[in-house]
Amino acid sequence: MHLRDMTTIDTVACVGAGTIGGGWVAYFLARGLAVRVWDPSPDAADRLRRLIDNAWPALTELGLAEGADLDAWTVHTDLAEALDGVGFVQESAPEDLDMKRQLLADIARAAPSDIVIGSSTSGYSMTEMAAAVQDDAQAARLVVGHPFNPPYLIPLVEVVGGDRTDGAVTEWAASWYDAIGKSVIRMDREVPGFIANRLQEALWREALHMVQNGEATVEQIDRSITEGPGLRWPLQGPMLTFHLAGGEGGMAHMLDHFGPSLLSPWTRLEAPELTPRLRDTVVAGCEEAVGERSFDERVRARDAAIVAVREAVDDIRVTLPGGAG
Amino acid sequence: MHLRDMTTIDTVACVGAGTIGGGWVAYFLARGLAVRVWDPSPDAADRLRRLIDNAWPALTELGLAEGADLDAWTVHTDLAEALDGVGFVQESAPEDLDMKRQLLADIARAAPSDIVIGSSTSGYSMTEMAAAVQDDAQAARLVVGHPFNPPYLIPLVEVVGGDRTDGAVTEWAASWYDAIGKSVIRMDREVPGFIANRLQEALWREALHMVQNGEATVEQIDRSITEGPGLRWPLQGPMLTFHLAGGEGGMAHMLDHFGPSLLSPWTRLEAPELTPRLRDTVVAGCEEAVGERSFDERVRARDAAIVAVREAVDDIRVTLPGGAG
Repeated sequence: MHLRDMTTIDTVACVGAGTIGGGWVAYFLARGLAVRVWDPSPDAADRLRRLIDNAWPALTELGLAEGADLDAWTVHTDLAEALDGVGFVQESAPEDLDMKRQLLADIARAAPSDIVIGSSTSGYSMTEMAAAVQDDAQAARLVVGHPFNPPYLIPLVEVVGGDRTDGAVTEWAASWYDAIGKSVIRMDREVPGFIANRLQEALWREALHMVQNGEATVEQIDRSITEGPGLRWPLQGPMLTFHLAGGEGGMAHMLDHFGPSLLSPWTRLEAPELTPRLRDTVVAGCEEAVGERSFDERVRARDAAIVAVREAVDDIRVTLPGGAG
Repeated sequence: MHLRDMTTIDTVACVGAGTIGGGWVAYFLARGLAVRVWDPSPDAADRLRRLIDNAWPALTELGLAEGADLDAWTVHTDLAEALDGVGFVQESAPEDLDMKRQLLADIARAAPSDIVIGSSTSGYSMTEMAAAVQDDAQAARLVVGHPFNPPYLIPLVEVVGGDRTDGAVTEWAASWYDAIGKSVIRMDREVPGFIANRLQEALWREALHMVQNGEATVEQIDRSITEGPGLRWPLQGPMLTFHLAGGEGGMAHMLDHFGPSLLSPWTRLEAPELTPRLRDTVVAGCEEAVGERSFDERVRARDAAIVAVREAVDDIRVTLPGGAG
């Protein structure tokens, strides 16, 4: 399968310019690309202007690519016109399966045959969404590239193909997002919610249960994260956090010591059985991530990160009208 | 019930000086208090010295209280001796119910009758832990004050009493932790895992299921948080994050629009039914938290926080031996 040489791409298309699609537009502009936008809303250009203006100071602070121009975009109501001359398409239509199916089929038909088409969907698999595409060669170029809000600041993009996606397309998409500065997780198979949203959603569902049962208020739930575990997560994910909490013994100690408490009714989600294989997989993953760094080095890095994050966020809270974020 | 005037307290006791107990010692020292430590391990003083030395630079960066002295602690193997002359006790023994029951009964018997005794437990309720205390007046002074690792940097403390805890003791403990600079969540009733750990644990359990089923690696799970939602959580908890993701329509829009997807099999945890009451409670909580700030002000604050957090963490990653945190 011949795919466009990504180093030649200077213009991309964004299909749908709401919160997520508009965020992609701002990001592509900051990376020095021109953007052709398809959005049927009469106020699309006004909303997009406001979104880009709000986003630009943060993007400037993080560093713009050479030639980045916050005005290098046009809005079109004709799809073929929006796709004219672009080297990549990012679809960010509302999360409506029928709409996505139709739109992706239209894009796949209209776009040149060497163009990869990424979808921002958070809720559907590409296997489901490509159902309306008759031509296998067209379906082969469709891949999920799932961002996080706001897409212009959160690095993560989850990349996963459907059952008709060509492996080379998934590979190309992962390289493309990486080349424009995203942090890519390439998944081997489709899982509902992908990875980060599954984890977020488990937390969110437990939070809703707690509100439902009068166990915690909205304010308590948010503060329990912002003043608690949320301060650790920008540097260390949940696995490394527990690895470090285990002291010198690390995750192995945590699982061997607290493994039984996995069976406690701490959340409404039942825990998996802690088999030796699961234990060893988790321990090995943590040890690989930590590498040669000593326990003391890791503690100091974690502490420095928490202090820096607290100071950064406190500074912003002070400047926010009405106080705490 | 007569309780110690907290403004007169200059010395506290820490019972147990492992990772959590030792972290409390470092924190109390930084707040200008002297600490008497009970810990039966022969190497307790050495481990504590190392923990305090590691913690002190971060505590200094955040600001020490007047008179804070990193040497103002002593270790004792006799409990009565450790409690001599202290104005507050923080118990941080290992999470072993029988051990905690015995130890809390011993502390409650030995400590003066106007002293509050806080427990760092993450896994047990005070109702369970106070079972070995015969005297109701002694049981009345026992309360959970649950910190997060490292206790010297993470502000959150969850405060909740057992069924024999005096309401004035819970009140006193909440005021005390607040007075020494902690961010207190006072819970009205005992819930296994309290609040933050229930939320963390839901995420953690879903992560273990994903590893168990080969859906994600340890590395992917951690990166999905550190490069994704983890960057938003120091400023905004999960509720406000969704409120802002809803655009001008906020949480009401999110729940009305995405409510049905709550029923999707996105995690192994089933969602609660989104009743009108639950919807309204969550929406009202978000609106109250946001107050009069405009959507654009909130977007700019969120963006500034994400940029500051990314820059802070990137700086630390660069200095960490072996690269990424």
